[in-house]
Amino acid sequence: MRLHVPVPLRWSDLDAYGHVNNVALLRLLEEARIAAFWRHPGAEDAETSTAVLDAGPTAATHTLVARSEIEYLLPLGYRRDGVTVEMWLGHLGGASIDVCYEVTSGAGDERQVYARATTTLVLIDAATQRPRRIGDAERAVWAPYVGEPVAMRRRPGT
Amino acid sequence: MRLHVPVPLRWSDLDAYGHVNNVALLRLLEEARIAAFWRHPGAEDAETSTAVLDAGPTAATHTLVARSEIEYLLPLGYRRDGVTVEMWLGHLGGASIDVCYEVTSGAGDERQVYARATTTLVLIDAATQRPRRIGDAERAVWAPYVGEPVAMRRRPGT
Amino acid sequence: MRLHVPVPLRWSDLDAYGHVNNVALLRLLEEARIAAFWRHPGAEDAETSTAVLDAGPTAATHTLVARSEIEYLLPLGYRRDGVTVEMWLGHLGGASIDVCYEVTSGAGDERQVYARATTTLVLIDAATQRPRRIGDAERAVWAPYVGEPVAMRRRPGT
Amino acid sequence: MRLHVPVPLRWSDLDAYGHVNNVALLRLLEEARIAAFWRHPGAEDAETSTAVLDAGPTAATHTLVARSEIEYLLPLGYRRDGVTVEMWLGHLGGASIDVCYEVTSGAGDERQVYARATTTLVLIDAATQRPRRIGDAERAVWAPYVGEPVAMRRRPGT
Repeated sequence: MRLHVPVPLRWSDLDAYGHVNNVALLRLLEEARIAAFWRHPGAEDAETSTAVLDAGPTAATHTLVARSEIEYLLPLGYRRDGVTVEMWLGHLGGASIDVCYEVTSGAGDERQVYARATTTLVLIDAATQRPRRIGDAERAVWAPYVGEPVAMRRRPGT
Repeated sequence: MRLHVPVPLRWSDLDAYGHVNNVALLRLLEEARIAAFWRHPGAEDAETSTAVLDAGPTAATHTLVARSEIEYLLPLGYRRDGVTVEMWLGHLGGASIDVCYEVTSGAGDERQVYARATTTLVLIDAATQRPRRIGDAERAVWAPYVGEPVAMRRRPGT
Repeated sequence: MRLHVPVPLRWSDLDAYGHVNNVALLRLLEEARIAAFWRHPGAEDAETSTAVLDAGPTAATHTLVARSEIEYLLPLGYRRDGVTVEMWLGHLGGASIDVCYEVTSGAGDERQVYARATTTLVLIDAATQRPRRIGDAERAVWAPYVGEPVAMRRRPGT
Repeated sequence: MRLHVPVPLRWSDLDAYGHVNNVALLRLLEEARIAAFWRHPGAEDAETSTAVLDAGPTAATHTLVARSEIEYLLPLGYRRDGVTVEMWLGHLGGASIDVCYEVTSGAGDERQVYARATTTLVLIDAATQRPRRIGDAERAVWAPYVGEPVAMRRRPGT
């Protein structure tokens, strides 16, 4: 099962070529991740979230990005209606999560995929600053979203 | 042979944990790349550059980032003296270049590596907007910097 | 008459104190301005726009920000539902527009104002790169939004 | 007396017109301010700093930007050698400081001024989160840098 997270673009995401800059695109993934994983007071998370983590530096669990990989498939111009970041989990480890993404617009025949990415998150206990295991409750919430790791077209050195 | 490109940090690169944000770190790689590959009028590029490409949207060649991969090894706090991005080429293809990076500070026993990354660049002919082959002159300039692809610790799905 | 432009926040707008950074707040004004003044293909601009200018570097008219002034009234934390930027025109000059803003959330008794700002825009003819006069059609569209300049609390040196 | 703070540019500061974006320019002022006012472990601050404040969220004093005003005089393109932000204090209040800036390049006949700005900073006691008075030691350090407030060309509503 995939989450579909709408993410607005900003004019300042565009580079001198009028495309969303390659680094700015990773910001969009970050935004989708925040929307999907973090619980916010009073937020309606039902449709687009698996939120079980509290947000912000005061939370008991911090998440650390250990790794990111992204392939750019199509240039993404400014879209007033933003993009939809489709997210699922490629792997649920002991203390880490591989989050997979497709940055898309449209649906059906109109569907376009601008980028594919995966990010490895490590859960950090804020008190000890050490990685901590994923709890059963978290695992239960996340399990339905586990799927095949995103297929990357090519990797240097492989 | 590696290029050593000094890259200043910005206060705004820091996240709420006081570390350079994982996305901001890719900006540092972009900065290093610009310094290394692009020619700027009046710039002293001798020590830290292989600059053979003209900068900016008006240049005859644009570069397109087709892929990025990064591993975060150590949290990077604010350093007034910035970081040194060590760069080399993991592969020189027909129309593409794999750029490898290590984000470091210090030297010798003091040397620390905060991140390892690789980016695949495709050369685009600005007129046709199509990929164009790397020329002999470019190849000659870049050849000395070709080395082993950066070794990534782990990759999901492999 | 005021435009009410909803502007989403981003996690990366927050500084180390968990508040929207003072510079990031000006990005929100930029976003509101783009939404309000620029026409985008296929965009539904009716409710939140006076769009009569075409967007982007290819447009016949560029706008240049000649001046910005902002007062920060309340710290703005992360709000999943973003903020509402209320906009009106403090002055319609020959070739320039003073845009006034209040960055708000809530309504009625709940309404909060986080910042007040004004920005002077100059219309630039893309062909000549010179300022160009505001046309009658533009003036007609914008006239209903002209109001009192935003009242700043204090100004140094006055 | 003015501080002269060198501030590097980033490629990502440029907008679609190839100029440093108007909001990005305020980031440069922030960078200059950090360099000038904050003490960093092991930093050589002598020439370009009045540093008497400790940096970061753990410091005893936070600074809050209460107000910013900027005038853009000349478009600023990418300069590999960055810009020099000239800084002085337009006013030393009880708990607030008006910082004045000119964003420049070159010197003598070559000197160019791209922007003029002023920012009002309020010193906040981190413990009480209330404004706190400027101490005598701070006042003594800052006094030599007090000068005429930056002259703004025009202000709407005046």
